[in-house]
Amino acid sequence: MKILLIGASGTLGTAVHRTLTGRGHEVRTVGRRAGDLRYDIAEPSRVAELYDAAGPVDAVVSAAGDVPFKPLAELTADDFRAGFHGKVLSQVELVRQGVSRIAERGSFTLITGVLAREPIVTGSAAAMANGAVESFVRAAAVEIAPQRVNAVSPTVFTESVPDYGDFFPGMPPVDLAVVAQAFVRSVEGAQTGQVFIP
Amino acid sequence: MKILLIGASGTLGTAVHRTLTGRGHEVRTVGRRAGDLRYDIAEPSRVAELYDAAGPVDAVVSAAGDVPFKPLAELTADDFRAGFHGKVLSQVELVRQGVSRIAERGSFTLITGVLAREPIVTGSAAAMANGAVESFVRAAAVEIAPQRVNAVSPTVFTESVPDYGDFFPGMPPVDLAVVAQAFVRSVEGAQTGQVFIP
Repeated sequence: MKILLIGASGTLGTAVHRTLTGRGHEVRTVGRRAGDLRYDIAEPSRVAELYDAAGPVDAVVSAAGDVPFKPLAELTADDFRAGFHGKVLSQVELVRQGVSRIAERGSFTLITGVLAREPIVTGSAAAMANGAVESFVRAAAVEIAPQRVNAVSPTVFTESVPDYGDFFPGMPPVDLAVVAQAFVRSVEGAQTGQVFIP
Repeated sequence: MKILLIGASGTLGTAVHRTLTGRGHEVRTVGRRAGDLRYDIAEPSRVAELYDAAGPVDAVVSAAGDVPFKPLAELTADDFRAGFHGKVLSQVELVRQGVSRIAERGSFTLITGVLAREPIVTGSAAAMANGAVESFVRAAAVEIAPQRVNAVSPTVFTESVPDYGDFFPGMPPVDLAVVAQAFVRSVEGAQTGQVFIP
C-alpha cells in the first residue's frame, strides 16, 4: 500500500516506518523538521496542503502528538489548548480532511496512549487529549465506512524506560516492535472504530 | 453543603437542582442567561470571575456543555474547536481554577455522556469532547486529593426521547431522576476519578 506516515522521525515513528517498509509498503514520511514532506499538522490549513502534496494514498498513519506534561497546578488554559491542537485537532483533521482524499477503502490509524485510561501525575492534559482521540475514533468510524479509522494506545515503550520509566511505576512497558504491529493490524486488517492496546 | 451548579436552567440542570435542594443543600445556580450568577464558562477568564463572585463553596457541579452535532462531512475545524471550548476546556477550568478556591475536601462533578463510548451519526465532536472530559477526570483525581473529581455520563434522557430518541435507536433511555442521583453519589460520596454511568 501507499502509506502517509506522520511523525515518522520520532521514536515511535521510526519503528513504525521500519515495520511498514519491511512489509513491502511504500511509505511517504511527514514531519515538522524531517521527512519526505515537511508539515506541522497542528494547523488545519497545513493538513490540506499536506494532502495536496502527498497525492493519492491508501492509508494514513499518525505517530505524532504534542502535549504538555506538567502538574495540574502548573498547567494553564493555554497548555490545554496546546494539547488539543497538538494531538486532538491535528489527528481529527487528518481524518476529516482525508476522507475525500484517500482510497475508497483506505484507513486512518491515530496515536493515543495509556493515559486515556490510567492516570499519572503531570498527565492530565495528555489524558484529556488521548481520551478525546479514542472517543472520536469510535464515533468517526460509523460515518466513514467503508473507509476505516482506529487508534493505537500504547503504554510506555521499553526503549523509553530509561527516560520516562519513573512516570510509570509498576506499569509493564511494551516493546516498540509490538506497538508497530498494532499499526500493521490497523492498516492491513479489517477492523474499524477500535482502540488497539499493544 | 454549599454547591455551585453550572447549567442550572437546562433540562438536566433543573433536575439536578431539584434533587440537590431536596437533600438540603444550598445551591447557587449559574447560567449564561439564567440563574443567580450569569457567566459563560467557555471563556477561562469568566471562570475566575465566577469563582470570585460565588465565594466559598463545598462542591462544584456542572450540567453544562455545548457541542455541535453534525455529520462528520459537515463538521469544520472550528466546530471541533467550539466543542473543545464549550464542553472540555470549560469544565477543565472549573477544576483547574477551582482547586485553590473550593473547600479542602470539596468535590467537582462534571458532565459527559454516552457518546464517549457509543457512536452515533452526527456525534463525532461530542464524542471527542466527552472522551476528553472522562480521561481528564481520571487523571486530575490523582493530583487534587483530598479534593475529588468525578464525571456523570448518561445516555439519552427518558424525558428527551421525543426530541432526540431517533438518534439513539435501541439504546435504553435513563430517567432524569436517576441521572440526578449519580450527581448526589458524586457530591456526597467518597469516590474520585470515577465516571458514573446512571
